Amino acid sequence: MKAEIITIGDELLIGQVTDTNSTWIAQQLNDIGIQMHFKSTVSDNKHSILQALKDAENRSDIIILTGGLGPTKDDITKQTFCEYFNSQLIRNSKVEKWIVAIFSNRKLPIIDANLMQADLPENCEVLWNRSGTAPGMLFESNQKIIASFPGVPFEMKTIFKEEFIPKLLQLKQLPTIIHRTIQTCSIGESFLAKKIEAIELALPSHIKLAYLPAVGLVRLRFSAYGNDADALNAELNEIYNKLNATIGEYIFAEGEKSLAETVGELLIKNNKNIAFAESCTGGFLSHLITSIPGSSQYFKGSIVAYDNAIKMKELNVSENILINHGAVSEACVLTMAQNIRDKFNTDFAIATSGIAGPGGGTNEKPVGTVWIGIASPNGTKAYLFNMGDNRERTILRTALMALDLARKVLLKHD
Amino acid sequence: MKAEIITIGDELLIGQVTDTNSTWIAQQLNDIGIQMHFKSTVSDNKHSILQALKDAENRSDIIILTGGLGPTKDDITKQTFCEYFNSQLIRNSKVEKWIVAIFSNRKLPIIDANLMQADLPENCEVLWNRSGTAPGMLFESNQKIIASFPGVPFEMKTIFKEEFIPKLLQLKQLPTIIHRTIQTCSIGESFLAKKIEAIELALPSHIKLAYLPAVGLVRLRFSAYGNDADALNAELNEIYNKLNATIGEYIFAEGEKSLAETVGELLIKNNKNIAFAESCTGGFLSHLITSIPGSSQYFKGSIVAYDNAIKMKELNVSENILINHGAVSEACVLTMAQNIRDKFNTDFAIATSGIAGPGGGTNEKPVGTVWIGIASPNGTKAYLFNMGDNRERTILRTALMALDLARKVLLKHD
Repeated sequence: MKAEIITIGDELLIGQVTDTNSTWIAQQLNDIGIQMHFKSTVSDNKHSILQALKDAENRSDIIILTGGLGPTKDDITKQTFCEYFNSQLIRNSKVEKWIVAIFSNRKLPIIDANLMQADLPENCEVLWNRSGTAPGMLFESNQKIIASFPGVPFEMKTIFKEEFIPKLLQLKQLPTIIHRTIQTCSIGESFLAKKIEAIELALPSHIKLAYLPAVGLVRLRFSAYGNDADALNAELNEIYNKLNATIGEYIFAEGEKSLAETVGELLIKNNKNIAFAESCTGGFLSHLITSIPGSSQYFKGSIVAYDNAIKMKELNVSENILINHGAVSEACVLTMAQNIRDKFNTDFAIATSGIAGPGGGTNEKPVGTVWIGIASPNGTKAYLFNMGDNRERTILRTALMALDLARKVLLKHD
Repeated sequence: MKAEIITIGDELLIGQVTDTNSTWIAQQLNDIGIQMHFKSTVSDNKHSILQALKDAENRSDIIILTGGLGPTKDDITKQTFCEYFNSQLIRNSKVEKWIVAIFSNRKLPIIDANLMQADLPENCEVLWNRSGTAPGMLFESNQKIIASFPGVPFEMKTIFKEEFIPKLLQLKQLPTIIHRTIQTCSIGESFLAKKIEAIELALPSHIKLAYLPAVGLVRLRFSAYGNDADALNAELNEIYNKLNATIGEYIFAEGEKSLAETVGELLIKNNKNIAFAESCTGGFLSHLITSIPGSSQYFKGSIVAYDNAIKMKELNVSENILINHGAVSEACVLTMAQNIRDKFNTDFAIATSGIAGPGGGTNEKPVGTVWIGIASPNGTKAYLFNMGDNRERTILRTALMALDLARKVLLKHD
């Protein structure tokens, strides 16, 4: 069963919007054993969309389209479907009522362009959009399934999960693919590959391994192809055990769990809490922790001490430290970590201070110099890093490294 | 001059990595008047890459590939180029020296897989990679330009800017396309379209308008095609003046400037500073401000008061407020905003408190209920919103709305 995605929109080709929809869609399809083998992006014009549909029908069994269903004049997907299927637009009264209800609930005036979102190709099956005004559409043609979704991610996701997946499972018999991902941090891709070379060479031909490096992390994805899910899972379990014996210290999670989630789970398990004092990470470390639902169970809060005056006043960093060591120093992050732990009355605390750049570097402390301090019931330690010369990456790497240090300290307390 | 991008990697098709490279590449090409008209993603297998190269040569003048140049066994792009061009891999001694130097500078051991990154197809021109170990490659074939880059974004970007663009400008005569983007917030797409309908209908055929909605924002992109850049710019200026007269209050920036940058520039211009007290945004508002280089000029810091105990202890929120109004209330954000402004001694301050979900909603205060308070030299005001039922989106929308409120207050002080 081959699937492909066609994303429609000049904004994707001109680089003003990054296509995150197809990432998400591919994940959903993989979960039910459908493999994406091609993805393309075409312009908002009739000829390009028609050509893409024709090519896709020659290549794939399931064709997913996103985009071009909005209320404005540059959205032409529905009209193009009518031409492709020799169909016509018909006003769907149920959808029309839904749109009117949405606007009246929000006490917003309604205009013709909004109502026209209820005009749909006669030959489509409507995929209900509980999250917005543009419905999805399902077409069956020459044994192929063609489904079209709005480009707005959360609307697409709602329709995909609630409407499309159940219909797809009714229509198609699906094979078995099992993906297993192992996430590592604090080790580079080539060293990881070297360490697990023997495991990789011993993989059977129906199990593939891919390295997925990202800033601060490397994920290892194993994909097992077959018919018997239990047998594949048993093989993957065995591989996982070997990996754990070889590179266990670098593995922070199996699956898509984030490092922040891992740390959160360790805190819950040990009934402990945490606070941060952030300088160079500027709130990003707190954001990573609070992006996890339920984080109020273990995260009390933080002080973003961007200005040195705030480090002094709120975190008792002394003038002596700032003059003799600087804000980016072991002494400074030790003080910050100890003081935020005391002030917010938590079990653990992390402090960050560094030079994210592009300005502020010196010979002694170049851009990328970062100190991380971690305070625990057993005392406070600080670690020095160089996170490179890119601001965004330094902020991200520092926050991830801080979480990994927290993970390691928590494992010792486990 | 037609360009297309081929991104290579199972990780992109399986949905484990979002392709941000092609977004960035498209922007760079657009800047020099080259239009992307197609984009595809193929699997890490020889047959798929060869087919994609063949199709691309029939369609496009400039073909950009990313991915598959890493040191691990699943990276096969170089070998595939050799087959496509009937060439062979040759060790490049200059690149080999560079790789050895990188590893010795970082005091890391080097392994064969690292050195093999210096093996390159004989017929390629090397595109030097100052940021890493995998060089880019340039091929000229049948009047077409084919360029290949590593998939790691910052390495690709370095090579693209420093090596590829200068070579491309030497090799090709380029047409003129001018893109102008106007960014709006606090108004929905269809209402914006209605307000500017007359301007849109009056656009000449060589100027196209696209609506690019994102969470909390709508961008309007005008694209003008022609030969005379000055004339196109004059036309776009006239359109911009009309837009400003019609929807000026919603426009926060021209171009790609973020709302955080706009607020930062207003603070610098007025020589003012700001601090935040964040509850539901959990540090994300501080992160948006500190992601801008130089933000230490106007951002003093913040308190992320996630736990009510921190709201009480650090921001003087009284037990009375918490019991009688709750943490998500006008009284609470007014107190938080006033107190962080006093405590951090700033001109302006913003406080957020809301129910990001998925838990914590009640009938009276459903998930998505958010209060934002803003304190200025002229007093403190609070605003109530409902940001919807998705945690991530509520955090993002709240932070953007907070910045837009700051923008409006600062404009009054301007």
